[in-house]
Amino acid sequence: MTTSELAQLARQLRVDSVRAAAAAGSGHPTSSMSAADLMAVLLAGHLHYDFDRPDHPGNDRFILSKGHASPLMYAAYKAAGAITDSELLTFRKRDSRLEGHPTPRRLPWVEVATGSLGQGLPIGVGMALSGKRLDRIPYRVWVMCGDSELAEGSVWEAAEHAGYEHLDNLTAVVDVNRLGQRGPTRHAWDLGAYARRFAAFGWHVVEIDGHDLDDVERAFGEAASTKGQPTVILARTVKGKGVDSLEDREGMHGKPVPDAESAIEELGGVQDVHVEVRKPAAARALHATRTGHLELPRHEAGDSVATRDAYGRALTALGTARGDIVALDGEVGDSTRTEYFAKEHPERYFECYIAEQQLVAAAVGLAVRGWVPYAATFAAFLTRAHDFIRMAAISGAGINLVGSHAGVAIGQDGPSQMGLEDLAMLRSVHGSTVLYPCDAHQTGRLIAQMADLDGVRYLRTSRGDTPVIYGPGEEFPIGGSKVLRSSDADRLTLVAAGVTVHEALTAAEYLDREGIQVRVIDLYSVKPVDRATLREAAERTGCLLTVEDHRPEGGIGDAVAEAFGDGGPVPRLARLAVKTMPGSASPEEQLHAAGIDAESIAAAARLLVEQAVVR
Amino acid sequence: MTTSELAQLARQLRVDSVRAAAAAGSGHPTSSMSAADLMAVLLAGHLHYDFDRPDHPGNDRFILSKGHASPLMYAAYKAAGAITDSELLTFRKRDSRLEGHPTPRRLPWVEVATGSLGQGLPIGVGMALSGKRLDRIPYRVWVMCGDSELAEGSVWEAAEHAGYEHLDNLTAVVDVNRLGQRGPTRHAWDLGAYARRFAAFGWHVVEIDGHDLDDVERAFGEAASTKGQPTVILARTVKGKGVDSLEDREGMHGKPVPDAESAIEELGGVQDVHVEVRKPAAARALHATRTGHLELPRHEAGDSVATRDAYGRALTALGTARGDIVALDGEVGDSTRTEYFAKEHPERYFECYIAEQQLVAAAVGLAVRGWVPYAATFAAFLTRAHDFIRMAAISGAGINLVGSHAGVAIGQDGPSQMGLEDLAMLRSVHGSTVLYPCDAHQTGRLIAQMADLDGVRYLRTSRGDTPVIYGPGEEFPIGGSKVLRSSDADRLTLVAAGVTVHEALTAAEYLDREGIQVRVIDLYSVKPVDRATLREAAERTGCLLTVEDHRPEGGIGDAVAEAFGDGGPVPRLARLAVKTMPGSASPEEQLHAAGIDAESIAAAARLLVEQAVVR
Repeated sequence: MTTSELAQLARQLRVDSVRAAAAAGSGHPTSSMSAADLMAVLLAGHLHYDFDRPDHPGNDRFILSKGHASPLMYAAYKAAGAITDSELLTFRKRDSRLEGHPTPRRLPWVEVATGSLGQGLPIGVGMALSGKRLDRIPYRVWVMCGDSELAEGSVWEAAEHAGYEHLDNLTAVVDVNRLGQRGPTRHAWDLGAYARRFAAFGWHVVEIDGHDLDDVERAFGEAASTKGQPTVILARTVKGKGVDSLEDREGMHGKPVPDAESAIEELGGVQDVHVEVRKPAAARALHATRTGHLELPRHEAGDSVATRDAYGRALTALGTARGDIVALDGEVGDSTRTEYFAKEHPERYFECYIAEQQLVAAAVGLAVRGWVPYAATFAAFLTRAHDFIRMAAISGAGINLVGSHAGVAIGQDGPSQMGLEDLAMLRSVHGSTVLYPCDAHQTGRLIAQMADLDGVRYLRTSRGDTPVIYGPGEEFPIGGSKVLRSSDADRLTLVAAGVTVHEALTAAEYLDREGIQVRVIDLYSVKPVDRATLREAAERTGCLLTVEDHRPEGGIGDAVAEAFGDGGPVPRLARLAVKTMPGSASPEEQLHAAGIDAESIAAAARLLVEQAVVR
Repeated sequence: MTTSELAQLARQLRVDSVRAAAAAGSGHPTSSMSAADLMAVLLAGHLHYDFDRPDHPGNDRFILSKGHASPLMYAAYKAAGAITDSELLTFRKRDSRLEGHPTPRRLPWVEVATGSLGQGLPIGVGMALSGKRLDRIPYRVWVMCGDSELAEGSVWEAAEHAGYEHLDNLTAVVDVNRLGQRGPTRHAWDLGAYARRFAAFGWHVVEIDGHDLDDVERAFGEAASTKGQPTVILARTVKGKGVDSLEDREGMHGKPVPDAESAIEELGGVQDVHVEVRKPAAARALHATRTGHLELPRHEAGDSVATRDAYGRALTALGTARGDIVALDGEVGDSTRTEYFAKEHPERYFECYIAEQQLVAAAVGLAVRGWVPYAATFAAFLTRAHDFIRMAAISGAGINLVGSHAGVAIGQDGPSQMGLEDLAMLRSVHGSTVLYPCDAHQTGRLIAQMADLDGVRYLRTSRGDTPVIYGPGEEFPIGGSKVLRSSDADRLTLVAAGVTVHEALTAAEYLDREGIQVRVIDLYSVKPVDRATLREAAERTGCLLTVEDHRPEGGIGDAVAEAFGDGGPVPRLARLAVKTMPGSASPEEQLHAAGIDAESIAAAARLLVEQAVVR
């Protein structure tokens, strides 16, 4: 395209952004208008993308990190012939594919949801890592960022990761329009401030006038030809560009243009420019899954093995059986045991250092490129990535998270290192699966099954050794549970998972000696939860006592209660959980102090059984 | 102290770190040894601190961001005469004040808990802001960081904030010992890599040999005399310094020294050097609370006011009545309505831009300096700060968090902007209070009460207008609820909060017309929850139907179930919540699609009432 054709395309993108927001009665046209020239040049000259084949392995990836500028992206789709003008005008309406912020659920050309700022670049790093180290296909990852979002630390985690990995297949385009939603950004039009930061993190920096089409053209070319470094294009732009009454004005964020008709006229009126987007070169299909025979580690009954060890070993075995398995860790692989995988499959291991947002974002980026990632850190520190996990669910990304060092059972290290809120966090994630094994064989089976589930999958592991209580051939279906002890005389059911399963079994023996029979359920699948087994236990025993190494809120107690939340009869329910703030102490002292060890369970059970008799 | 005395002190700090970890059988002596020279010089020459008066307003603040090096800090306490040698050897034991990672619960000289890396500097920024903009006392904030933790984005959010605010009362001391827990860090001993990054963010940078005491002395002096910029001291150090078999060795992280006795001998044996730490200059007591008369905004019955507006206005009024109230926002003050406060009390408003970790960290820093902070952003984006909120609870910091744009009721913007997991996150935080008002007067009263609570307090606000249903004089005790509708003929109880209160009231009217009486409870206090009122409703009506604009897990449904988790009789329970992934649509369409509008509530209620009849 000639410069004047590009200018015409850019005008159309602005006009269509204004029109879409006007039709919706909401949206972010001014944030779209600032980036329209950047988008026009990218679309017409630099993006390699087959809109008819969004799954083409050679396609460039484009992430609109400033997701609120969605009208611009949808306008580009129209210009590329991917959507019609009438669909453009369904923007933000119920059941439209064109949501307020892009999501991949309905739109085939969107790979990850954006709208929570500062996530596009971190995820783009994951995609670029795939291209560089796994796919080895020369696609380029383009991430369009806003300037406001550069305040997010996650952007600098991504900058560090990309710089260190020399991701020259990654380009960040920053639309520096000076105005955030509330007013001026910290650095306004001081491109140098951003340039110094990116350069310090090892990026190639190009500063341009984002409305000078030749400048923009040159910058994109420079990005594509720069070797050994990612490139950031810092583009000075004007919010609301093209309409005098909107340009660089505060108070115009996130609302339709006041007088759309005259704005459209000022921009040159409705047009119908069509762009032929360049197709990608032929590329071989992505990694076959190369499924071999899975040989999970086997242990003897009576062995004691930490579930974190079992995770590390099972993942390593899974990685041997399947070539699509990749692993990531937040520089604690010696503790989580991801290091076992790293040693066996170094080419599929990604060290993310102590940057949990980037850890999860990279996993999302790898997942949408077709890999099956397992990302591990301490359960406590996964809270750092909560927003990324939330957004991964909106993206529908299939990621596996493994949180080690669950609960007070870790012992001396104290509360900062104890995962005590992780079940609550992961249960509340839409469409998630939450697993919490208590022995090594169970861990292995669950790790293997996770690979083929949808959405966000979470498995919680423990630091200390626990006895192997299941055989190597035992099956553990997702949504199931194991009744470890039951009789017709059961007067109570203990519901436990992970470390408390063993405490509950010991408590049941204590009680048995006193003539009190109790049922014990291993609730390894916290979400989905095994309603049928819980319901049967409720009918037979009348009372369920949950025991968990987690805060009382959001974990196993809540999961069991929710199982009876359908309006039917509810058994008596009681819960033991970590209700105080632990300090340093041995694992045994911790379990006792928290009231979740065998003695405490037995004491609570006695009381509940007596209460039932009184009634 | 002379250089040779300092060297002797440093040796003692190393010896005592080794001894403490040896006595504990766990801990991080090698991470302590690398920073011992830095600590010795700080303690003996630069820290101004009265150990007998930890509440002295003029005290410097010291944060050990690399909290695992706690033996070093406790060894320094001993050298300063604050603890005895025998207490030092209680390290990591049950009931000891000397926990594995420092917490302020028992130790008066620790202000914030550390142990989750990358949090010390962000919180230090909050303290330094207090000194610079509020207290105006010339104390200095010293933060000792590890090198591994510089990978955390939160460190760069802090670097940005401190650089921008010219916090020359803040010094970061980075112990660059090259080795993380798993092995080498990304940049190993490349001090220049860190120097470029900090300089780009506007910091004064000093690079030193962290074992050259004169170098260290000079650097601390330079930090104290540098004006207009925060200073970072990048100290090249050796992990395990002083013991040949430990120095710079991998695999020695986080474990006692193998042969403690010979290590102690190599370090010169047990010593008893005492340091006279410099006392701070006299300083006026911190800000009086200056409590005036609180005039909360008043509305007419029938007015429609968004609870986010009510928050903004109430906080402004509270700020007028009390001089200790401060507000922070993540560059969305025009949406959260923190901007009302910012306009009226600009000197007590802190713009944190789009950096939610720093937002919460700054609030924690201000809170421990005696201020009462309210930090607001979208409820959805508070998830970004989950780990900081978790750690704030361990610190026992009194912070108020306000999350706006709760639930699907926000409408067109779509799921990325909807707070749907926030109640789950905040309920699981130890000692938290979780509030969710449905009208303007209620919001005002709750905002005012939050100021005087302990721990983490959270209030959830809504985007759209809701009718004013309470009078201006109504009281809303924390842990209470309001029965908005009841009769002896009630066959069901609707439990709602926020936007669903109004839907539940409408549903109750629909049902009334059909001859079905239902009770309606406004559960504005989600945690603590009003067990007595729920229990009475259960006894009278037999069935509780919760309705919430939140995911089914961790929110109001779980809170109500938990209220019956004491082993007593449980009513039938049912829950309506957001079980699907919303797209863009109007607020009314969203509530309907999620099945939490009046029609859906009425339909569910009918079914539950019929089921009860069949039984």
